[in-house]
Amino acid sequence: MAIEVGIIMGSDSDLPVMQAAADILKELGVGYELTVVSAHRTPIRMVEYAKTAQQRGLKVIIAGAGGAAHLPGMVASITPLPVIGVPVKSSNSIDGWDSILSILQMPNGVPVATVALNAAKNAGILAAQIIGTYNETIGQNVAAYKAKLEREVLGKVNNLKEKGYENSFD
Amino acid sequence: MAIEVGIIMGSDSDLPVMQAAADILKELGVGYELTVVSAHRTPIRMVEYAKTAQQRGLKVIIAGAGGAAHLPGMVASITPLPVIGVPVKSSNSIDGWDSILSILQMPNGVPVATVALNAAKNAGILAAQIIGTYNETIGQNVAAYKAKLEREVLGKVNNLKEKGYENSFD
Amino acid sequence: MAIEVGIIMGSDSDLPVMQAAADILKELGVGYELTVVSAHRTPIRMVEYAKTAQQRGLKVIIAGAGGAAHLPGMVASITPLPVIGVPVKSSNSIDGWDSILSILQMPNGVPVATVALNAAKNAGILAAQIIGTYNETIGQNVAAYKAKLEREVLGKVNNLKEKGYENSFD
Amino acid sequence: MAIEVGIIMGSDSDLPVMQAAADILKELGVGYELTVVSAHRTPIRMVEYAKTAQQRGLKVIIAGAGGAAHLPGMVASITPLPVIGVPVKSSNSIDGWDSILSILQMPNGVPVATVALNAAKNAGILAAQIIGTYNETIGQNVAAYKAKLEREVLGKVNNLKEKGYENSFD
Amino acid sequence: MAIEVGIIMGSDSDLPVMQAAADILKELGVGYELTVVSAHRTPIRMVEYAKTAQQRGLKVIIAGAGGAAHLPGMVASITPLPVIGVPVKSSNSIDGWDSILSILQMPNGVPVATVALNAAKNAGILAAQIIGTYNETIGQNVAAYKAKLEREVLGKVNNLKEKGYENSFD
Amino acid sequence: MAIEVGIIMGSDSDLPVMQAAADILKELGVGYELTVVSAHRTPIRMVEYAKTAQQRGLKVIIAGAGGAAHLPGMVASITPLPVIGVPVKSSNSIDGWDSILSILQMPNGVPVATVALNAAKNAGILAAQIIGTYNETIGQNVAAYKAKLEREVLGKVNNLKEKGYENSFD
Amino acid sequence: MAIEVGIIMGSDSDLPVMQAAADILKELGVGYELTVVSAHRTPIRMVEYAKTAQQRGLKVIIAGAGGAAHLPGMVASITPLPVIGVPVKSSNSIDGWDSILSILQMPNGVPVATVALNAAKNAGILAAQIIGTYNETIGQNVAAYKAKLEREVLGKVNNLKEKGYENSFD
Amino acid sequence: MAIEVGIIMGSDSDLPVMQAAADILKELGVGYELTVVSAHRTPIRMVEYAKTAQQRGLKVIIAGAGGAAHLPGMVASITPLPVIGVPVKSSNSIDGWDSILSILQMPNGVPVATVALNAAKNAGILAAQIIGTYNETIGQNVAAYKAKLEREVLGKVNNLKEKGYENSFD
Repeated sequence: MAIEVGIIMGSDSDLPVMQAAADILKELGVGYELTVVSAHRTPIRMVEYAKTAQQRGLKVIIAGAGGAAHLPGMVASITPLPVIGVPVKSSNSIDGWDSILSILQMPNGVPVATVALNAAKNAGILAAQIIGTYNETIGQNVAAYKAKLEREVLGKVNNLKEKGYENSFD
Repeated sequence: MAIEVGIIMGSDSDLPVMQAAADILKELGVGYELTVVSAHRTPIRMVEYAKTAQQRGLKVIIAGAGGAAHLPGMVASITPLPVIGVPVKSSNSIDGWDSILSILQMPNGVPVATVALNAAKNAGILAAQIIGTYNETIGQNVAAYKAKLEREVLGKVNNLKEKGYENSFD
Repeated sequence: MAIEVGIIMGSDSDLPVMQAAADILKELGVGYELTVVSAHRTPIRMVEYAKTAQQRGLKVIIAGAGGAAHLPGMVASITPLPVIGVPVKSSNSIDGWDSILSILQMPNGVPVATVALNAAKNAGILAAQIIGTYNETIGQNVAAYKAKLEREVLGKVNNLKEKGYENSFD
Repeated sequence: MAIEVGIIMGSDSDLPVMQAAADILKELGVGYELTVVSAHRTPIRMVEYAKTAQQRGLKVIIAGAGGAAHLPGMVASITPLPVIGVPVKSSNSIDGWDSILSILQMPNGVPVATVALNAAKNAGILAAQIIGTYNETIGQNVAAYKAKLEREVLGKVNNLKEKGYENSFD
Repeated sequence: MAIEVGIIMGSDSDLPVMQAAADILKELGVGYELTVVSAHRTPIRMVEYAKTAQQRGLKVIIAGAGGAAHLPGMVASITPLPVIGVPVKSSNSIDGWDSILSILQMPNGVPVATVALNAAKNAGILAAQIIGTYNETIGQNVAAYKAKLEREVLGKVNNLKEKGYENSFD
Repeated sequence: MAIEVGIIMGSDSDLPVMQAAADILKELGVGYELTVVSAHRTPIRMVEYAKTAQQRGLKVIIAGAGGAAHLPGMVASITPLPVIGVPVKSSNSIDGWDSILSILQMPNGVPVATVALNAAKNAGILAAQIIGTYNETIGQNVAAYKAKLEREVLGKVNNLKEKGYENSFD
Repeated sequence: MAIEVGIIMGSDSDLPVMQAAADILKELGVGYELTVVSAHRTPIRMVEYAKTAQQRGLKVIIAGAGGAAHLPGMVASITPLPVIGVPVKSSNSIDGWDSILSILQMPNGVPVATVALNAAKNAGILAAQIIGTYNETIGQNVAAYKAKLEREVLGKVNNLKEKGYENSFD
Repeated sequence: MAIEVGIIMGSDSDLPVMQAAADILKELGVGYELTVVSAHRTPIRMVEYAKTAQQRGLKVIIAGAGGAAHLPGMVASITPLPVIGVPVKSSNSIDGWDSILSILQMPNGVPVATVALNAAKNAGILAAQIIGTYNETIGQNVAAYKAKLEREVLGKVNNLKEKGYENSFD
């Protein structure tokens, strides 16, 4: 399986959040790599990673970081690939506001596709949706995943009903 | 030219912001359609739009809305396509915070690729980057666009220097 | 007893918050139903629920959701019934700000009667007040409930006094 | 026509915002009264207004105020009627945040049905929806109003199309 | 000892915060009374308390409340006495922002002397400072208290030094 | 007339806001002085002002400042007099949030009686209320002022009614 | 005069804010250079600038940027020199919050000396203070500048007094 | 070793945060002193500390405080030395916002070099960078420290790879 998604994060302390991206990509059948790339502690490695991403075959980059989170935006400034940013509510973050704003509010010309705070799973799904635009199998996997989500909720609806919640709707 | 991007917005009052998405897509050679789809005033039309988007050939949807901005998330809940959300700082918005949070903070399973407040241009570039993952021409257009941005800044650097700003760096 | 209030929530994880609405409605003698309807995972079910609510005899809908909370506003866009929104401080919410703003800041034409963060009990009382506008018994139950609240506070006043808080006011 | 809705506001400077409630109630065929009641400058008048509202035949109260906005909550503490609160972005307000939080965040037992910042029109519609729960004519007027909103958006859709926006959706 | 300060709070759940006001007043030799007065659950009792405060000999009122905190402002609207407001970070408050803004942002004509979040101790000191403007003994107690604070810090400075913190300043 | 209130501000650019304190004190018959004392540009003058305030006969200090507003708190740390802080929304302030928080959030032991953003008028009224605790004439002036406020609102009520606002309450 | 301070900014639209740094450095006798270096549009130039700054003789770098402002932090990640960050309230910024947080909230190991929003003048003064730690002339210039500030305020104090502000303090 | 950095904090409760500044200065070979100086409880001591800092040989002051944090700014108003401010998230702080804003938002003329919330370690590094502008040994220590940070991250990269994270980048 080709590696089409690069998952990077600013620190290994982001791993508990970011591995959800890896897990869902595996479930959806998308090949990925995962490593640590720090914008602030390994800036040269970051430039190298971003510069070579496309030629190494990556199609999408998922970058997670917290606080003054520069990794997603800086990678996006170097690579022409779509970059998905995951604001991480790290221990040094102010309730996540710094993580969100420093990833989301990119200037004209350099977008980062930002997902919700800590939403690495959604970053993985979004990456799969992007790959699904040209890879029919992945596209179908995404559609099947969404259908499964719906079934799970309907299962919970029935569950509630059976537990005797008065007059629950069906 | 095939229409691959659907640009929708909650109200025609969002048009002055959202047309920047159309303009940059044109510049990057990506076919698009543009229309008004209101989650709150035309919910059935919205469902219809989202349900048929993929079969009509769209690859990416760009949805802009302001205030309690439900259009991007609701469309993303229905279509398997990647959806890019543009938080619009509309007249009824509280400095854009409501627009941002109600687009960005989607639950697990239903991502919206959110860009900066009013950043419709970046939404267009992101859509082109997504299409560039499989369409080499568009991918090259994006790369050329980024190179042009760099040249423009370098031009301004020279400009500053010529205007006699003391000791400017080169 | 007729079912006049529909209580819905975006996820069964909202149930610990939302059951306070059911409890108070029971106490006030108002018939209700309760179920899970996810705007993002079961959008078609949501449309169906909202479309049929009035003809099924509901008079008020209470909808709770967290994060990018679209359920109350989307239901309000489809049904002519009054919709009460409960912003839930769910685990993926940013201290509740996203939940509040994405429920409260609805555009002109589509109001949602928003109550305080996690205030499902108040949503239930508000629903009873609405039904009390035409159903005298329920109206009297609401008035009696408010009188009980006052008596409870006065009881605490006496309690404080008896515990010897110096010079407490009476 | 019976007067069923009382529209009150903390200051006559709120009138430019609050008259939208009166206008839409007129359009929807609901009888109303409108006056100034200041929680902080005429507290006794406020108590009197709230105490007598139900016996004077009112069914719903719409209260608008800005800054430390106590009028809606205080009226709700006295009357058993449903109270709709309109946070006004008055000149002394901090971008409306104070107005919103001091109306929305009511304690258990005393709900205020809060609408968006400055959304007096939505307060009027919500009042009509409440009256529509028992008055079929008003209920139909609300439904017709919502249908009109939809038609207006569809008209704008056609408008966009005719103006030659490339490839607009229909 | 005459009772010159009235300490009131919206709920007995505010007592753990508010008793710091009582404790410091006792320490500073100021007579006080303490009770529960809820703006929202016992509005008539609140009006009565505020109306009679001055004639009962009170000179200052300290009022603590959380969430949509109307007690300090409403009491200030009725009595000519200075009212000190304590924003309480109660369980239903959004990190205290609602408590602060709904106490602080009073309209022209009706000030509330607001202290920091949960700062009931400072409310007590401020009340003593106000009484100290005409009662020399209390004024001296306040001055002595401030001198004690200074000595305590200087004691900690010495403490740090003795514990061998390298090169600490003296 | 004795000078009992000192009005100080961090910069003469705060004068347009702060003179409302002087105006209302004049109206209420309270003697005051007014000058500029900058915590950051004239720290020694500030210490001097605060140290001598009580012995010069002042009873209350009103201090206004914006941005990182240290003047009220620093003066309060030096004088035993009650200090009223006016957060000024100066040109370098972030919508007033910095001004409010750096005045309000004082540590235990050193209260500042904070009023609303830009509410210099309320600072003046509060100072008069404090002086009114021992000076009966000023106390009566405050009471008369509050009564005048009420009459003004009632005048506006009549005004609205005469202008033909449909069915206004009386 | 040696060039010891490098002033850089993300866009020439930041120039109206940032030139205050140049002006004050000139006034304080510090040599500087000024140019545009965009983290997002010219990332390679930025790396080059930061890498060579020290060897080119710079002692301090002042970097201004707005929105998701990565320039100060990225430069700080590459150079061992002290970096002063100026959050610019640019047109795409959300009231400056994004600019502040994305500059201030740097992770451990990579500080940015952040000054107030738009406070380029203070950035210049801070740079001069840093240079003043080893260059006595510059240190004296800074001290003289601070003395001048004090004199200016005292001049305004006299001004107020002469204009007849009642009882101003001296 | 000469003492060149003064570390001060408003309360000994700030010590667990602030000692990180001392630790890193020791590691980088910079002499420091550490003590408690409270702006609000020992204002005269604070003035004395700031006035004598330069003549005692200090080159940089690091000041940490929480809530309405006046220590850094007040010290900066008195000394010509560069002052680094550490916003402390103390128990009475509102999530750190008050600490940040009351340190960062200094007026023109009096900069404070603000670092991230609780980032005392970065304050120490910044102080060393400032001293490194004239002391080559310290400058080399800073450079070596940054190189160590990079090696640590690269070590973690290898770690991740060895632990078998699929396809990690190298």
